[in-house]
Amino acid sequence: MKRIGIADTTFARVDMARAAISSIKKEASAEIVRRTVPGIKDLPVAAKKLLEEERCDIVMALGMPGAAEKDKICAHEASTGLIAAQLMTNRHIIEVFVHEDEAPDEKTLAILANRRAEEHALNAVLLLFYPEKLTKMAGTGQRQGYEDAGPIEGSSGGHLGH
Amino acid sequence: MKRIGIADTTFARVDMARAAISSIKKEASAEIVRRTVPGIKDLPVAAKKLLEEERCDIVMALGMPGAAEKDKICAHEASTGLIAAQLMTNRHIIEVFVHEDEAPDEKTLAILANRRAEEHALNAVLLLFYPEKLTKMAGTGQRQGYEDAGPIEGSSGGHLGH
Amino acid sequence: MKRIGIADTTFARVDMARAAISSIKKEASAEIVRRTVPGIKDLPVAAKKLLEEERCDIVMALGMPGAAEKDKICAHEASTGLIAAQLMTNRHIIEVFVHEDEAPDEKTLAILANRRAEEHALNAVLLLFYPEKLTKMAGTGQRQGYEDAGPIEGSSGGHLGH
Amino acid sequence: MKRIGIADTTFARVDMARAAISSIKKEASAEIVRRTVPGIKDLPVAAKKLLEEERCDIVMALGMPGAAEKDKICAHEASTGLIAAQLMTNRHIIEVFVHEDEAPDEKTLAILANRRAEEHALNAVLLLFYPEKLTKMAGTGQRQGYEDAGPIEGSSGGHLGH
Amino acid sequence: MKRIGIADTTFARVDMARAAISSIKKEASAEIVRRTVPGIKDLPVAAKKLLEEERCDIVMALGMPGAAEKDKICAHEASTGLIAAQLMTNRHIIEVFVHEDEAPDEKTLAILANRRAEEHALNAVLLLFYPEKLTKMAGTGQRQGYEDAGPIEGSSGGHLGH
Repeated sequence: MKRIGIADTTFARVDMARAAISSIKKEASAEIVRRTVPGIKDLPVAAKKLLEEERCDIVMALGMPGAAEKDKICAHEASTGLIAAQLMTNRHIIEVFVHEDEAPDEKTLAILANRRAEEHALNAVLLLFYPEKLTKMAGTGQRQGYEDAGPIEGSSGGHLGH
Repeated sequence: MKRIGIADTTFARVDMARAAISSIKKEASAEIVRRTVPGIKDLPVAAKKLLEEERCDIVMALGMPGAAEKDKICAHEASTGLIAAQLMTNRHIIEVFVHEDEAPDEKTLAILANRRAEEHALNAVLLLFYPEKLTKMAGTGQRQGYEDAGPIEGSSGGHLGH
Repeated sequence: MKRIGIADTTFARVDMARAAISSIKKEASAEIVRRTVPGIKDLPVAAKKLLEEERCDIVMALGMPGAAEKDKICAHEASTGLIAAQLMTNRHIIEVFVHEDEAPDEKTLAILANRRAEEHALNAVLLLFYPEKLTKMAGTGQRQGYEDAGPIEGSSGGHLGH
Repeated sequence: MKRIGIADTTFARVDMARAAISSIKKEASAEIVRRTVPGIKDLPVAAKKLLEEERCDIVMALGMPGAAEKDKICAHEASTGLIAAQLMTNRHIIEVFVHEDEAPDEKTLAILANRRAEEHALNAVLLLFYPEKLTKMAGTGQRQGYEDAGPIEGSSGGHLGH
Repeated sequence: MKRIGIADTTFARVDMARAAISSIKKEASAEIVRRTVPGIKDLPVAAKKLLEEERCDIVMALGMPGAAEKDKICAHEASTGLIAAQLMTNRHIIEVFVHEDEAPDEKTLAILANRRAEEHALNAVLLLFYPEKLTKMAGTGQRQGYEDAGPIEGSSGGHLGH
């Protein structure tokens, strides 16, 4: 049975992992392993440990960076670390970050965070079980949490390489 | 037979991979392996997996970063990861990023994206099959998607080192 | 017996390690190994040596970056290195940085530094001994040194993944 | 016989490698191996392949980043990769970047590019054959392409450590 | 006998290594190995080679970045590389950078550079021979080249962890 790791934080103000896990369970049969760390800078090693020590096949890393300049730099450092962790393990880590200043108020922020977690959970499932479905969506302007941008008119959607 | 990997995204609004693959097929006889991921930050590991697990000889990584400051940082993180992936594998990954704000309107953006993908596909073919042809073009101000800048007058084009 | 490493600096103007160590000793039975370096850019390798040469199970890295732009870049470099050290060892390093410009005066800065060190010491203890307790706090807006932001109303707190 | 690798780009508008190679040949007896890639972000792996697959003892990486903000970030990514490639191989890679906005006009830019390539070619030769000569020049404000800044008066030049 | 590596540049306008070496010799009995490179971006691999090929126990990396924005980025790249080199070797590299714009005039800059080199030489000696002395100075606001900031009043100095 495939194993999906979930790494999240106590810093976030929304339990995005709950939304992600619920979404995964609707779409696929997989074992979930969850680890929670204090902040987003703790996520890279948490994700790598899930991949290597807990033998997960893919990991979702969920976090909610603050709105200050200092927080933007934290998010950049965490993202850089998440990419490095993927390169060290040859496994995908789906980063699901929602910046506190992406929404005009708390309620909208919570909705955005949960929707993004759910839609990226679907991406994790596709990467793990149905990668060819992603190729069918290539170049179609998918967004997570927001409305899709869609493909530019006249440039039709993805197709398989073979 | 040489293998060329194509990594692209569902986030992009143009199916740049289609243009790249079509261009490769005109120029060379190579097997194409395509993998599509959600966004540009997923490209580094996708490219590395194509090189290591799918035994590709070179990879093209195609993406379309958004226009916001946050998207610029994403592109920087992805580029850094693509360079790291190359250093870990001793193989080239041709990055083909088209920023959403590089063109004044959607139609021009789509044309630019397809042209850049096609011209970088040619670069991938040259790197893989005819590297000495690139040396003949050294210092000649080549651009992909835009008109070439050309060499500065009086500073003549490249020549072989031997 | 578990070993907790403490890496701190002579540059900092508050002995944050003292506060951290005192806090750890209240919460857990663990051996403490402390190493002090000149500045925050010396912390990544100090932390890695504590993990690898002193066989620590987790490390706290405490520092106080200055307020100038140059100091912000130093902090960014140190943080990037701390994340890399974690990825190379598969162990957590809890970064406890207090920026000199986070408080309006020296006295408040000292209080903030000590509180953050104490609260992150608790995080280190939780990661090491009671990781499931962190999951119960997932998404609840925890802050270290400042008052907690709390969860966004209507988005209830964390729960275990199983 | 020592081997010097030359990595350059088709993006540059001046054939800096020609100037570098000519300069090396005047100063030393070494085999030159040249590889040309599309842009500066392709240089790190090209340089690493020259060091590892072509057994070069040192590499010069020549490029001409554009003047736009996006190009500055490209240069930063390339430089970071070149440093990583050196750390992975324990060999020097001399970066010779000339930014398009370093000169007021094209003709001056070409002169600057060729001079910098020539002067850094001399640095490569010194690092490879006469490292102690560099120590004699320590702290003397050497510049490549521009006039030397010189040592600050009263702080005399370098000497050997032994 | 312990070995201390010294890596410095021809770009710097002050022979900071001379000051550092003189200071080391007053404080400790150690063999000095010095290597000079063109600029600060050449320091990371120079330092790593001193650690690995010359079997140094610690390295000082001395440089003088210019005042322009481009130079600040160079310094950032060099610092990042120095931290990576430390993580790859589990040895300390003491970075001693003096920015050209840190002092109002050349004479003051030279004095600052020499003082910082000397004071960091002492740090290198402490790290290598007397690490416990650094812990006694933890949190006391030490500065190199400038007057010490000192501890914040009421937050007393460092003490040993045991």
